[in-house]
Amino acid sequence: MELKIKTNDNFSRVSESYLFSEIAKRVKARAESDPSAKIIRLGIGDVTLPLAPAVTEAMEKAVREMGKKETFRGYAPEYGYDFLREAISGHYGRFGIDVPAAEIYASDGAKCDCGNIVDIFGDNGILIPDPVYPVYLDSNLMAGRRTTLLPTSEETGFLPTPDGLTGEGYIVYLCSPGNPTGAAFTRDGLKSWVDFAARTGSLIIYDSAYEAFVTEDVPRSVYEIEGARECAVEICSLSKSAGFTGTRCGWCVIPHSIKAGGVPLYKLWERRQATKFNGIPYVVQRGAEAALLPEGRRQSMENVAYYRKNAALIAGALRRRGVFFTGAVNSPYVWMKCPHGLTSWEFFDLLLDRAAVVGTPGAGFGKCGEGYFRLTAFGSAEATEEAVGRLEKLL
Amino acid sequence: MELKIKTNDNFSRVSESYLFSEIAKRVKARAESDPSAKIIRLGIGDVTLPLAPAVTEAMEKAVREMGKKETFRGYAPEYGYDFLREAISGHYGRFGIDVPAAEIYASDGAKCDCGNIVDIFGDNGILIPDPVYPVYLDSNLMAGRRTTLLPTSEETGFLPTPDGLTGEGYIVYLCSPGNPTGAAFTRDGLKSWVDFAARTGSLIIYDSAYEAFVTEDVPRSVYEIEGARECAVEICSLSKSAGFTGTRCGWCVIPHSIKAGGVPLYKLWERRQATKFNGIPYVVQRGAEAALLPEGRRQSMENVAYYRKNAALIAGALRRRGVFFTGAVNSPYVWMKCPHGLTSWEFFDLLLDRAAVVGTPGAGFGKCGEGYFRLTAFGSAEATEEAVGRLEKLL
Repeated sequence: MELKIKTNDNFSRVSESYLFSEIAKRVKARAESDPSAKIIRLGIGDVTLPLAPAVTEAMEKAVREMGKKETFRGYAPEYGYDFLREAISGHYGRFGIDVPAAEIYASDGAKCDCGNIVDIFGDNGILIPDPVYPVYLDSNLMAGRRTTLLPTSEETGFLPTPDGLTGEGYIVYLCSPGNPTGAAFTRDGLKSWVDFAARTGSLIIYDSAYEAFVTEDVPRSVYEIEGARECAVEICSLSKSAGFTGTRCGWCVIPHSIKAGGVPLYKLWERRQATKFNGIPYVVQRGAEAALLPEGRRQSMENVAYYRKNAALIAGALRRRGVFFTGAVNSPYVWMKCPHGLTSWEFFDLLLDRAAVVGTPGAGFGKCGEGYFRLTAFGSAEATEEAVGRLEKLL
Repeated sequence: MELKIKTNDNFSRVSESYLFSEIAKRVKARAESDPSAKIIRLGIGDVTLPLAPAVTEAMEKAVREMGKKETFRGYAPEYGYDFLREAISGHYGRFGIDVPAAEIYASDGAKCDCGNIVDIFGDNGILIPDPVYPVYLDSNLMAGRRTTLLPTSEETGFLPTPDGLTGEGYIVYLCSPGNPTGAAFTRDGLKSWVDFAARTGSLIIYDSAYEAFVTEDVPRSVYEIEGARECAVEICSLSKSAGFTGTRCGWCVIPHSIKAGGVPLYKLWERRQATKFNGIPYVVQRGAEAALLPEGRRQSMENVAYYRKNAALIAGALRRRGVFFTGAVNSPYVWMKCPHGLTSWEFFDLLLDRAAVVGTPGAGFGKCGEGYFRLTAFGSAEATEEAVGRLEKLL
């Protein structure tokens, strides 16, 4: 039946993404045309290695607690159990970053926080890098916000800069190491954004979901930069660092000193979460705690090291062929320039047809992604090595 | 620092609730003034019995799967694994209710769905019963919606009716069996709302979180009513039926035939969830599946039966004393009239001072809750029996 209620018109501003369905379609056609071809997928944006033993042990124990009256737990605190908030704070502390537990709000993931935080803001100018993780843009479009894309390119290593921006009171989304480009801000690069925010009364929403992949001397948290506690919210996740994509735990840091319109921002987030969220499962919180404590982190970092080797393999081939790329060093993503001036979909087809390797066309992440291509390090070492050999031959 | 960004002004429309903090304060004062008093809490809105063995077994198995490469699972489908959606569909089927799996969207709980579904709507008149579970009202206020409270009273058994309503294109929130009143619609009572929605092009958002407590011949799902598939969304949860308050799993049913503004409503929900949500943990989904399959449901219903006995004890005392109440029969909540014309806070103090029993003042759930009081059945049998004895003596 056609009802007489009004729906949210802004939803029509979000164009349906056919990126991954189109990829699936072309891969299927390729597989059918040549059933003997061993197609290798380097387009996966999801982890493939299992949870660390310390994590599953903690979760199994928690499940058993939930099965006994004496140790059963009902509603969890909306912002996370203290043991988890402390573990997250301790994790930052081990990198010399001071984030008090009370400013940490646990959640079911960075994507959810990125999407839900839009609720607490009014009508601001929203600055979003291009190319970008689509959630920043789509969640703001769906809320009717005025979004402005910040073009990035090879010249700036696909990192946005505040140069030439005028106006004030912006909300700026930054992701470093970035998705899809894998590019990481230097301290100076990130400092220029913190200074911009301080100067213009803007808020930075900093997505640090890939912090575990940092190997160079680049920031893994925005709070390594002086002044960030006055103007930046950080959203992080265990998805990529501890394989939690299917287990769901992230968090948001809102320094209590940040205010807007006379109201501390964290009060709005607490209100939002207390009204529309009911905490994350106790079992997951125990797993997350274990993933952040030294033993679990060490075990999880073995998986990260495995992915890193894959990234290094891909990067090595590109270096040998003189192909421009960002990422790989501090990221599971390798963002390469398509050879011979091909568009990203043309290169997709070429790579699939000639090498039976699947990647992700950069155009799927924004206009500035055209002519570039994303490969990921989340496959098996064997398959990645084989794929890299084929790629190198093709380039 | 004070930033120059605009926050969501509508958040100031939601008054901070001091209900539970005020209760805690008064209980603490009572305990301190008389340390020997054995205070019994019948105000708990949270389950206390453990997860069923079938559920914890399924969850332990799932945790082990997540710890092995061969069986590890990354991102779950945003709307839930097919095995869970099928289990929910099968659960409805065992009550003779036809809900296709494809119309079921799994989530981390009914509260989250109730809050998040506001995203997909535009500016409509929102009808909300009084007294009410605060989430319906607060989430709409925070989104700047025009809300109208539907007063209920003893005369209609605290069930709202559409009598006298004019206009069209409303969104109507109904909860049955209700929170805080425990009152359940008869088939005719609910039919009058479905007819109203059909006639006025309105949408019903039906919260059936307490369906497991139904014992009489009253609907446990809105889809038992003819025509509901054309105008009603149902939100349900395992929190109360299977003790999932700290494990988090609920779902939303959106019949694919419901449209507004030419767009199927479920498409908007799918877009919302795909953009701002990332599915629920695999481990939880396996636990939820087990809770819905016959063995897990049977085991979980033993807990429900335990709570029901508590509710019956409370109801028995009130009947013997001739005190008006709703609930208890199809609900873990007993909504009683305060004796001697006391206000709900006056009765709270009386009950606490004279009987050392804690309940929840009805005024905390809306203006029409004044003069009424909520007792819950989630305590232990022994404590409930003791509390009921004290209550009966007081009345």
